[in-house]
Amino acid sequence: MDKLKILDRIFNPKTVAVVGDKLLNNNYMWLQGVKTFQGKVYSVNIDPKEAVGIEALGIKNYPSILDIPEPVDYAFVSIPREVIPTFLRDCAKKKVGGVALFTSGYGETGSPEGRRLQEELMKLVPELGVTLIGPNCVGVFNPKIGLGNGPELYHGTGGPVGFISQSGRNLLDFAGLAYQHGIKISKGISYGNAYFYDSPDFLEYLAKDEETRIIGIYIEGIKDGRRLFKLLQETTPKKPIVIWKGGQTEAGARATSSHTGSLAESSKVWQTVIRQSGAIEADGIEELVDITKLLLCLPQPRGYRIGIISMNGGQCVAMADTFSRVGLEVPLLTEKSYQQLSEIFKAVGSSYKNPIDMGLPWYLLQAFKPALEILGCEERIDTVVVEIPALFIKMAQDIYPDFANLIYGTIFDFEKTVGKPLLVMLPPSFHEEAEREVRERFLQGNIPTFSNYSRAAKALKKVVDYYLH
Amino acid sequence: MDKLKILDRIFNPKTVAVVGDKLLNNNYMWLQGVKTFQGKVYSVNIDPKEAVGIEALGIKNYPSILDIPEPVDYAFVSIPREVIPTFLRDCAKKKVGGVALFTSGYGETGSPEGRRLQEELMKLVPELGVTLIGPNCVGVFNPKIGLGNGPELYHGTGGPVGFISQSGRNLLDFAGLAYQHGIKISKGISYGNAYFYDSPDFLEYLAKDEETRIIGIYIEGIKDGRRLFKLLQETTPKKPIVIWKGGQTEAGARATSSHTGSLAESSKVWQTVIRQSGAIEADGIEELVDITKLLLCLPQPRGYRIGIISMNGGQCVAMADTFSRVGLEVPLLTEKSYQQLSEIFKAVGSSYKNPIDMGLPWYLLQAFKPALEILGCEERIDTVVVEIPALFIKMAQDIYPDFANLIYGTIFDFEKTVGKPLLVMLPPSFHEEAEREVRERFLQGNIPTFSNYSRAAKALKKVVDYYLH
Repeated sequence: MDKLKILDRIFNPKTVAVVGDKLLNNNYMWLQGVKTFQGKVYSVNIDPKEAVGIEALGIKNYPSILDIPEPVDYAFVSIPREVIPTFLRDCAKKKVGGVALFTSGYGETGSPEGRRLQEELMKLVPELGVTLIGPNCVGVFNPKIGLGNGPELYHGTGGPVGFISQSGRNLLDFAGLAYQHGIKISKGISYGNAYFYDSPDFLEYLAKDEETRIIGIYIEGIKDGRRLFKLLQETTPKKPIVIWKGGQTEAGARATSSHTGSLAESSKVWQTVIRQSGAIEADGIEELVDITKLLLCLPQPRGYRIGIISMNGGQCVAMADTFSRVGLEVPLLTEKSYQQLSEIFKAVGSSYKNPIDMGLPWYLLQAFKPALEILGCEERIDTVVVEIPALFIKMAQDIYPDFANLIYGTIFDFEKTVGKPLLVMLPPSFHEEAEREVRERFLQGNIPTFSNYSRAAKALKKVVDYYLH
Repeated sequence: MDKLKILDRIFNPKTVAVVGDKLLNNNYMWLQGVKTFQGKVYSVNIDPKEAVGIEALGIKNYPSILDIPEPVDYAFVSIPREVIPTFLRDCAKKKVGGVALFTSGYGETGSPEGRRLQEELMKLVPELGVTLIGPNCVGVFNPKIGLGNGPELYHGTGGPVGFISQSGRNLLDFAGLAYQHGIKISKGISYGNAYFYDSPDFLEYLAKDEETRIIGIYIEGIKDGRRLFKLLQETTPKKPIVIWKGGQTEAGARATSSHTGSLAESSKVWQTVIRQSGAIEADGIEELVDITKLLLCLPQPRGYRIGIISMNGGQCVAMADTFSRVGLEVPLLTEKSYQQLSEIFKAVGSSYKNPIDMGLPWYLLQAFKPALEILGCEERIDTVVVEIPALFIKMAQDIYPDFANLIYGTIFDFEKTVGKPLLVMLPPSFHEEAEREVRERFLQGNIPTFSNYSRAAKALKKVVDYYLH
């Protein structure tokens, strides 16, 4: 059977076994993570004391995987290293679809014992023909069918973003942070030490997966770099791929070595590979989220030229500087636009060269919609950036109830009718509640928001680069 | 009378007049901002209808500032440009201590009318001998005496950070964002177009102000650059100064021109001035907060070498890369430290080269305190960075109630006994509530927290540069 079919069974299991989950260590964290799974969940735990706690959760426990009275598609395993070989022999007998091994302490420790156990595993697994992800990983996340690897993640609804992560924490963090911005996961995988299944295997799967439109990757090391490069090259024209490579500095490489046993490669080689393959490079978990958000929400930008509308002169300065510095342009507009803008901004105190400073006074708010329309038609502008403080919208709601709806409605309409990319800046605010509320409201209209100008500018530059090169 | 004495009266007024505040435009925003002022507040509004609303707030309103039955130390003014000359003549008669003029629409508009009014003001104010801050500014913030310029800011408690801002919004935002991280303001000022009082005047004042230990500045343009440079040079050895210069790009300079009428200067000249004066350059409001936070909380770092303790391998990689990239070092430790660490980390799954990956298992938590102590004594480490997810602490509280206290206690003790700088990373989290709670708890022990590694690294690098150069 080919790897894609095997992965298909693991990503879409009907029966899941959680092996070795414990109260003592983690309050049955792994069982909590699959309690919403729409298929069947079994527990395997040899300790009769733990079995009592597990059955109290409403989950049937067996002392051996062989005792489970039906086929097992996917097993998530957290048992001591010493008993892994015995367990894997049981898996082979049981014809388990795939095993994700959380257990760590192999080659990545650098210890003789760790290396010995790694060699044993490398020999045993192919002999038995067991499908093994990891070790040192948290396995599969498929929220649509309620299959998770942490009690804190969402379930019951999936999305268009596939995520391949060598680190378990980065998978969990990406899924959670992205969800805050309305981005949901189709399939996620943490693959740890990658002894048998490596990033290209998962990339090949997600490249063909119909639910996946965008792919995010966190990678520490790679065995077959050529295969990864080829797959990236083939996939990026159809599905944008965002890659964060961990361990690009000497200290970082030291950390990947002890984390997943990944060897250092030259950071320049990596950057070249990523760029030449057409993928987008990210420098951390937050940039992964930022870029994915823009890829998902924005219509395709045609160029680097930004038109800025702001409620405040100080923010105009900050945004103009920040967007210019990363290589985007904040150009002057055409005479035609200036004539139209001068009709709108007859009142004193506003400036409309670009950035367009609306000025705070409320009576200028009627100018917002026409100003946005002018930027929508402006041939010199490729992407529109609107700055509006979350607290301003909240306070306005109390004084002029229609005001917030005017803002949201105008922006949502722009997206629909003009088809030009639009980002909303909710500038850094100490009113966290207001920011969250307003961000969620914009999300309902598929409008990406940012509170850090620098992050917005860097992510937008990379996304325009992707579409234009 | 010299400028310092004049400013002293304005920064510490006993009587304040708010002139021209309105329900229609802003729901008496300015009066709301001074409702907690510990001295006396009067309103001046010529409109009898507005007077009714103002008196309903419990504030005495007069149609003219001349009617106020006692001396006025500070007047905040938001009235139409056309009546400003008449009003200023009244102020001269009344011997008002100082006027902050919110009204805008002068030279910064670029219009003939704006320039004409500017010239009129430039002639009239020196003639009358009135002290005028602005125009186009929000004036003084002195939270200790309850004198503010927005209803959303804190009152009744001051701190050691003075803030000079050409933009009003940046003053409000800095004050609010800094407060989230336990940083309070001694005196803040927004000075707008700076026709009469410019940044050097305020800097000279804050340099001598006993309440002020650290000074932040947001500046768009400067008339007397030599005076600013000289003052910076004199002050930075005694009080650290953090400067954000707005308008360093072409588009940014276009925005400062229409915001406060500030002319463009070469960004290279500015950077040289800032560095040679011993000040610290910041690139935005968030970096202003980050750097100020470190200056305020950390003991003086002796060098660039960072020791990292983390709960997770993926975070070790990200931090090692991020801190290395900005020019900090994540070095190997001495043999002595490795011997001690090997005693602690007998369990498998942890790595302690630096970064020190504690591993997630709970039983390793007893190793946290001794590992921290080893880094405290390690001669090759200048600053310690501890990464611990906020949610992890929160969850631990439920399972092992003493655990969170162990973490907090150990970190607070380190600060007190070792005297080496320590930063806590609360990595980017989708559990905003947990993050806020844990951040506030660390603040009680004066420990700075960051959720973005890149921001932490950049700010720390700049702070070490400041102390070492």
